[in-house]
Amino acid sequence: MSKVSVATIASHSALQILMGAKQEGFETVLICLRDRVSVYKRFSHLIDHFIIINNYNDIMRSNVQKTLLDLNSIIIPHGSFIEYVGINNIYDLEPPVFGNRKLLEWESDQFKKLALLRDAGIPVPRTYSVNEDIDRLVIVKLPGAKGGRGYFLARDREELLSKASYLEIDLNNVLIQEYVIGAPMYFHYFYSLVLDRLELLGSDLRYESNVDGLKRIPFRIADPTFTVVGNIPIVLRESLLSKVFDYGERFVKLSKKRIPPGVIGPFCLEAICTSDLDIIVFEFSGRIVAGTNLYMMGSPYSWLYFSEPMSMGRRIAREIKLAIENNMLSKITS
Amino acid sequence: MSKVSVATIASHSALQILMGAKQEGFETVLICLRDRVSVYKRFSHLIDHFIIINNYNDIMRSNVQKTLLDLNSIIIPHGSFIEYVGINNIYDLEPPVFGNRKLLEWESDQFKKLALLRDAGIPVPRTYSVNEDIDRLVIVKLPGAKGGRGYFLARDREELLSKASYLEIDLNNVLIQEYVIGAPMYFHYFYSLVLDRLELLGSDLRYESNVDGLKRIPFRIADPTFTVVGNIPIVLRESLLSKVFDYGERFVKLSKKRIPPGVIGPFCLEAICTSDLDIIVFEFSGRIVAGTNLYMMGSPYSWLYFSEPMSMGRRIAREIKLAIENNMLSKITS
Amino acid sequence: MSKVSVATIASHSALQILMGAKQEGFETVLICLRDRVSVYKRFSHLIDHFIIINNYNDIMRSNVQKTLLDLNSIIIPHGSFIEYVGINNIYDLEPPVFGNRKLLEWESDQFKKLALLRDAGIPVPRTYSVNEDIDRLVIVKLPGAKGGRGYFLARDREELLSKASYLEIDLNNVLIQEYVIGAPMYFHYFYSLVLDRLELLGSDLRYESNVDGLKRIPFRIADPTFTVVGNIPIVLRESLLSKVFDYGERFVKLSKKRIPPGVIGPFCLEAICTSDLDIIVFEFSGRIVAGTNLYMMGSPYSWLYFSEPMSMGRRIAREIKLAIENNMLSKITS
Repeated sequence: MSKVSVATIASHSALQILMGAKQEGFETVLICLRDRVSVYKRFSHLIDHFIIINNYNDIMRSNVQKTLLDLNSIIIPHGSFIEYVGINNIYDLEPPVFGNRKLLEWESDQFKKLALLRDAGIPVPRTYSVNEDIDRLVIVKLPGAKGGRGYFLARDREELLSKASYLEIDLNNVLIQEYVIGAPMYFHYFYSLVLDRLELLGSDLRYESNVDGLKRIPFRIADPTFTVVGNIPIVLRESLLSKVFDYGERFVKLSKKRIPPGVIGPFCLEAICTSDLDIIVFEFSGRIVAGTNLYMMGSPYSWLYFSEPMSMGRRIAREIKLAIENNMLSKITS
Repeated sequence: MSKVSVATIASHSALQILMGAKQEGFETVLICLRDRVSVYKRFSHLIDHFIIINNYNDIMRSNVQKTLLDLNSIIIPHGSFIEYVGINNIYDLEPPVFGNRKLLEWESDQFKKLALLRDAGIPVPRTYSVNEDIDRLVIVKLPGAKGGRGYFLARDREELLSKASYLEIDLNNVLIQEYVIGAPMYFHYFYSLVLDRLELLGSDLRYESNVDGLKRIPFRIADPTFTVVGNIPIVLRESLLSKVFDYGERFVKLSKKRIPPGVIGPFCLEAICTSDLDIIVFEFSGRIVAGTNLYMMGSPYSWLYFSEPMSMGRRIAREIKLAIENNMLSKITS
Repeated sequence: MSKVSVATIASHSALQILMGAKQEGFETVLICLRDRVSVYKRFSHLIDHFIIINNYNDIMRSNVQKTLLDLNSIIIPHGSFIEYVGINNIYDLEPPVFGNRKLLEWESDQFKKLALLRDAGIPVPRTYSVNEDIDRLVIVKLPGAKGGRGYFLARDREELLSKASYLEIDLNNVLIQEYVIGAPMYFHYFYSLVLDRLELLGSDLRYESNVDGLKRIPFRIADPTFTVVGNIPIVLRESLLSKVFDYGERFVKLSKKRIPPGVIGPFCLEAICTSDLDIIVFEFSGRIVAGTNLYMMGSPYSWLYFSEPMSMGRRIAREIKLAIENNMLSKITS
């Protein structure tokens, strides 16, 4: 225990992960781009070791790998992890990664992602192939788009083609997905392998630019864009919890079968709740999501499980601690 | 004290009520539909006794009543209570109910509800009779509509009639209410009979499907619907508190006169704040509202009163405890 | 220490300031309009001394000044401070004011305000003079408009002139500002002179009437208005923190040079985040903002710095305490 350290990359939910690790008594390591050091130095009481890199590729350099191994680091992946490490390097990273690397790979492919949800029996929006007729509102999602950047809406085939042409997008590489009418909501789960327990630790709304600003303008002045710039807390109508837990359990179960050992730790289902209280899941994240940053001192849900402040970052560190105590560390890392 | 237990029905704000009761040292009882047991079993550390029922009607069965009486239960009503127990059975329920049953009956009639607010001198929106001319935007509210389902908007008589016809709604049974232009806000009050004190314990926004999703779509693609699917926290402009407390006090006072012994414990005024900072109250709830689920560990307002985490659920349990200590239990139940 | 008291005016963020002062062990003084006494008496456990006034002008009366001086009060200014004290009286107020009075004067002039931001190298929206051609959406801001009241939008010169004429507004006195398309966000900073440290203690969205209600209506039924009626919590995309801290530091630095001794304590940058993740700052507040009322028990950011609940109100009181301990009290007041 005293030897293991918790490492992450300076972005996304790093501050939460570092604080959670500290709360659970771990040493912390931050891999940080040089031009972000000045930000994270402000929180140096949360960071025992800085590994400063000049660019994303540096993370695969042998001296970085060696430092992490010497520090006995477990790397906590987050939403910027694939962007930093690169999908091709994911299996070459030498230190242990918390959770299942294969799930991160899966997550980065929008088609495999949706197939997993669908096969689990979770309702998903309709997907359209590039030659199909578009009979309802769709959202077009670019591959590797980070935080919703570059997504756009279309109501029919003509609008789809003209926007794709204008934006110079090759429609063969995109996901054309039914845009379900309803209220977006994001569920923050934690699957504990040590306790064999699925926990719901929070929920949020994404705050997106410019779409969440456009709503306030009475004229049509621009097309909506969907860059995530923040998160807003919500609680869910309590009667929705049946479906929320059911879909979470289905996800855990099928991921164990398809992508053994399955999901470990935090994941998120990203959904629309219709006015008939159906929940349609349009995406998942196989790791911590930034919406959990809202709940640095616990969420309305975390307090149902824990009598102390329990952020998702701390929950991850707690799981590592429990795994060490139960001699299961190799089972929760990959 | 050690003998009394706190009971509620598995929905709405049950988890908060159960946790609050536990925090105050009570045994807890959950009346739970069979198909929801799997959800609530996840929180079995909060629940001492499950009473499992197959359908809503079962709650009136003698064995259920007897179990509740044997457990010395006080039932905490919430937003799904009338739906479960049924308006006709409300006085036949044998165990004591926290608060005033008559107020729950009153709440279920939209016309009596508005009359109470109006008579208290609280500003309310204009109500239209079915034959009146519609001279501004109105919202049409169905009787017994749960959580806003089935509500619709109309701008004039023609739109009203055509939508009612399309939706197969008998306009003789609905409330046709002016839709006040402004910002919705919900005030969570607690009236303590033991302390003779009106507390403001929180405020929220309702998150509704599909209306809160439609805002993000630049085309008119569907008519708005108003099914509550979650809640978002807010704090109020501090200068609004004068009106918020004034209207709360008016409600307490008139309810004591009209529906003795009046409101006891949690209630909510549901309002629009105009750009001139007027507060127009379009509805009330005479019991705990689901927006309080946001504040499982206290709200910005609860911390002004209490130096420990105080959810509305816990506040209810605290009131029961205070009433027991002051030999006033019969005064806060009905 | 035992002699100093913390005073504020009954509005805006007074409850937070009073509670924070109490948490840090200070006596508290509330200057309160007579017709608001009944509200604040509800929180009399937070208030050691009431100074009751009949109107705004009374605050400059010698007996009020004398009472404050006798109580060794430090006045905490907030968003209603200028409104109460009056811009002409700001330097005649005898008791010490927390922070820099000159900055409050600067804040009350929309043109000087924007110039300060621009000169600090912080991106600001374009400003239009009254005779200039309007080539994009603008927002028109009235001088001394409190909480956004009276602001309006215009798309071109014709709309600008016709709305100004209809609303009987003299365009020579207003700020005509580009309305940047994106998502609004407000950053709550605290600059500690004692620690020479810039802290980010929270962020929020303003909840405005009627604009945040109009979004929910599918018809154009009224022009948007921007009266602030509440605040909604958010967390920021973590990668935005580089710019957020950079702009905060720039503001601190230039304010020291231009308006010595510069900003002291709480301030706020009010910004739009575009879909390209640029942050455009359209206004600042040189004192505590009401959005901090959300974080009565700390925010996701405050917990990164402090291991106890730290509201902005408490942070102010903490700074006074630190200044007393370090014999710097005269440096943090004016």
